[in-house]
Amino acid sequence: MYSQPSMSRLSLNQITTDNWSLREAVDGCVRAGIPWIAPWRHKVAELGLNESVKIITDSGLRVSSLCRGGYFPAATAAEREARLDDNRRAVDEAAALGAETLVLVCGPAPDRDIDRARGWVQEGIDRLVPYAKDRGIKLGIEPLHPMYAAERSVIVTLGQANQMAEQYAASEVGVVVDVFHVWWDPQLYTEIRRAGNRILGFHVSDWIVPTPDLLLGRGMMGDGVIELRRIRQMVEEVGYQGPIEVEIFNKSIWDLPGDEVITTMKQRYTEYV
Amino acid sequence: MYSQPSMSRLSLNQITTDNWSLREAVDGCVRAGIPWIAPWRHKVAELGLNESVKIITDSGLRVSSLCRGGYFPAATAAEREARLDDNRRAVDEAAALGAETLVLVCGPAPDRDIDRARGWVQEGIDRLVPYAKDRGIKLGIEPLHPMYAAERSVIVTLGQANQMAEQYAASEVGVVVDVFHVWWDPQLYTEIRRAGNRILGFHVSDWIVPTPDLLLGRGMMGDGVIELRRIRQMVEEVGYQGPIEVEIFNKSIWDLPGDEVITTMKQRYTEYV
Repeated sequence: MYSQPSMSRLSLNQITTDNWSLREAVDGCVRAGIPWIAPWRHKVAELGLNESVKIITDSGLRVSSLCRGGYFPAATAAEREARLDDNRRAVDEAAALGAETLVLVCGPAPDRDIDRARGWVQEGIDRLVPYAKDRGIKLGIEPLHPMYAAERSVIVTLGQANQMAEQYAASEVGVVVDVFHVWWDPQLYTEIRRAGNRILGFHVSDWIVPTPDLLLGRGMMGDGVIELRRIRQMVEEVGYQGPIEVEIFNKSIWDLPGDEVITTMKQRYTEYV
Repeated sequence: MYSQPSMSRLSLNQITTDNWSLREAVDGCVRAGIPWIAPWRHKVAELGLNESVKIITDSGLRVSSLCRGGYFPAATAAEREARLDDNRRAVDEAAALGAETLVLVCGPAPDRDIDRARGWVQEGIDRLVPYAKDRGIKLGIEPLHPMYAAERSVIVTLGQANQMAEQYAASEVGVVVDVFHVWWDPQLYTEIRRAGNRILGFHVSDWIVPTPDLLLGRGMMGDGVIELRRIRQMVEEVGYQGPIEVEIFNKSIWDLPGDEVITTMKQRYTEYV
């Protein structure tokens, strides 16, 4: 039996309590003794960057990552340039917030040409790396589940993310392992091993059966079929000892009081992760 | 520009006109000049095997495949044995109907242990092969989209299907390439090439954006983002010249009159496949 994860590694990915503002989420984490938080950019924008930085700094919480940069492919060069500018702003925000990693959700193709879109992702990362490096921010490529290939990310396997990340130094670009996105992959453990010291984040939730919805159907840990502990064991075996983010897109969880969600999350983290 | 596919290869996978009985589907194909049909076992059972064989034989249609065998993993040895018996009956039905291939949808895990379930799939195929071979039926492993990993199949990539099929002679076990299930895969073209003469079937539909539903959200060819012609070109390059099945799970298409669906299907086949 593998040991339980330390509470000192637990992070609230802010989407899990989507009805909360950043201020409410920070307060909720402090009340519950959760030491990390992963804010989303649109929530930071609601409050303003300076105020967000102040609230988080004052709270004593640490920022496990900023969600999210990416969305590199676009039909026109001008639009791709605009996306890159936005990614630079995301890097600046990550630096201001004290995050070490900007999570990249790489974006869908603007048309049917998935290979070209993948090329634009590589090109976008290529151009973003020097800017991020100068500001001390690592880029974490997060492969999404293949069911999001048409709408959110053309990067859909850990193998693909590793392949892209390996073009750069491990101090510049790595991967984010989210169990919901990768659990089905027959190459999962091989690719975790390959990722090694490039793993910049580890996200947990669960895959519910039957699956209620493509986007909002993620489950609380323990409510589904993902081998959470086995996957955690493997990311630790290859050296990852960083924060563990709970990231759940689920309307029925969002509709619960945030404190209740966080309480359940802590219990399930200990029991299942 | 790659040439249009010949109408002589078009097959109606019966699920596309799910409100039709087998008799109605056969009549619909004859009216529309579609030369192939792929019946589903539950529709064959409704009519009885002998009557189904008679209707199809009398119609002059050819059977591109029988859907479906598989569902090998189960919690108990007794249940796995029962599944194997059912697969033997599926082989018998395929032989009676004049299908060359029994499509295998391999089944989900009965618990969280996906690797063990994959082992049971291999074991099930292993035991089914001699029986199928004696009756002249090839087994076609169809990898399903990873979003079905928990409910329908632990075999989720063409690479995995190839790996399993390669344990046997190409005359015994092959793979079925369904664009809906594999289009997102960064290894798709590599794995189609690897499959080569093991490709036993080619299924088309489309991936709609936004995707309306996990199970019933497939689109008519041309309504989505899949590079249909490119994928067809590749399966043909490696030698596949067999029937092309249109297999669409979509409630709004099912609700249309069958003849209308078939008319659209023929047009889209010529235009997009």
